[in-house]
Amino acid sequence: MSTWHYDLESAVRETAPGRWATRLSAAWNIGANPNGGYAAASTLRALCQVAGQPDPVSVTTHYLRPGLGDRPGEILTELVKPGRRVSTAAGRLIQDGKERLRMLAAFADLSAEGASSHPEQSLPPPRLPPPDRCRARITLDQGIDLPIASRLDVRIDPAFAEPGAAGRAEIAGWVRFADGRPPDSAALVLFADAFPPSPYGLLGQVGWVPTLELTVHVRRRPAAGWIAARFRSRDLADGTMVEDGELWDEAGNLVARSRQLALLLGG
Amino acid sequence: MSTWHYDLESAVRETAPGRWATRLSAAWNIGANPNGGYAAASTLRALCQVAGQPDPVSVTTHYLRPGLGDRPGEILTELVKPGRRVSTAAGRLIQDGKERLRMLAAFADLSAEGASSHPEQSLPPPRLPPPDRCRARITLDQGIDLPIASRLDVRIDPAFAEPGAAGRAEIAGWVRFADGRPPDSAALVLFADAFPPSPYGLLGQVGWVPTLELTVHVRRRPAAGWIAARFRSRDLADGTMVEDGELWDEAGNLVARSRQLALLLGG
Repeated sequence: MSTWHYDLESAVRETAPGRWATRLSAAWNIGANPNGGYAAASTLRALCQVAGQPDPVSVTTHYLRPGLGDRPGEILTELVKPGRRVSTAAGRLIQDGKERLRMLAAFADLSAEGASSHPEQSLPPPRLPPPDRCRARITLDQGIDLPIASRLDVRIDPAFAEPGAAGRAEIAGWVRFADGRPPDSAALVLFADAFPPSPYGLLGQVGWVPTLELTVHVRRRPAAGWIAARFRSRDLADGTMVEDGELWDEAGNLVARSRQLALLLGG
Repeated sequence: MSTWHYDLESAVRETAPGRWATRLSAAWNIGANPNGGYAAASTLRALCQVAGQPDPVSVTTHYLRPGLGDRPGEILTELVKPGRRVSTAAGRLIQDGKERLRMLAAFADLSAEGASSHPEQSLPPPRLPPPDRCRARITLDQGIDLPIASRLDVRIDPAFAEPGAAGRAEIAGWVRFADGRPPDSAALVLFADAFPPSPYGLLGQVGWVPTLELTVHVRRRPAAGWIAARFRSRDLADGTMVEDGELWDEAGNLVARSRQLALLLGG
């Protein structure tokens, strides 16, 4: 059995067809509740088993209510459509009798993908200082407790580390598991929700920015090492934001993209 | 009762709690099957009623099998979570006993949104020639029949009208209903899937590019008139593509954004 924190703390056990037991840890909290990416991790793990394909390629999570740390949860899963190339599954996480999140996701085998006859990647990785010259997320003046720092090592490009100093709704940096677990395709879904909200670079402390919906597309399996990431909101208005993210591995390959709709409560 | 094609041909009738009858028209076909945006329109309409909010703000559709034109369909709906500000609903469209698509969507009231205290829109509309100097989509050399041209008036910027000539996976132009129906928030979800696939500008004829999953975020209700749109794939590899879209109304406001994961069968 794995001894990595992530695997232990997102473990699932099927108790009946389509029903799974899990337990959310409070070690991944941001403020008083589990980080959204982490709250979704056990549901994603169950769906991946249901789908019978190794890699999530499109994961949409609707956050209905905050998850509860250090509390058990039940996951209900449905195989929507099995497929030779792509399989689709749906799931929901219930804690204390209330649905916390709903997920709809497609899975495939990214190891089977060959070289493309039409490669185009016009999203090169950002030029970031090396991780040891970036700022640990926990040192930023975010106005919120970050127990999650015990689990994820997030380093922020100094250009985005001071509240409001970047002058735009953007943040960039590096992420890896704090205990050295190598990244995989499912971990990218978690990493896509691991950075301070991009409006921090424009507005400074924005407190809790609740995600309504997050969609992550995994494009390639990541190489071992750090993941570089950049998040931008170019559409920040009327109390909501749409934030786009891109993630690259150390080999410089684009490994995932994300987009989330979130509420700006202070906006 | 409305006499607009779109409303008639995406009409739904609740036959029992959570069960709706609909019928897809073949007038929206691309090749032999209904356009994906249109195939999803009746399900979106049912979910909007279930949610009790007027505007879709986040709509994710997983396309499981092609829809069937000129055939009845049944829609099964679930109110996932009602909310004062945002309500979430899920639905599926069944034809001939098989699920065609699965949708998970959030709804809100965009008429209630006020001016933002932190407006930022760094996605200005593209500079397009006026519609009468663009090319009707049906005149493009796409290698596929377009019955949908009877329903949607799509005009392509001449810079992107010749197969492969743009040198990049991008397409831009204008869209409106062919019969003059004004656009609304739900129509933007349809319009986000109404253009030739963006790889046309790079690769030329790409035939049918089946959408696996499409997510549309509606940001504002559109003003009357044409909708300007731009679609780009900056991540085209290994037989799949992620295509981003932005839609603006004639007032120059960003009204919706889209992202889809699709298969490049010829890639």
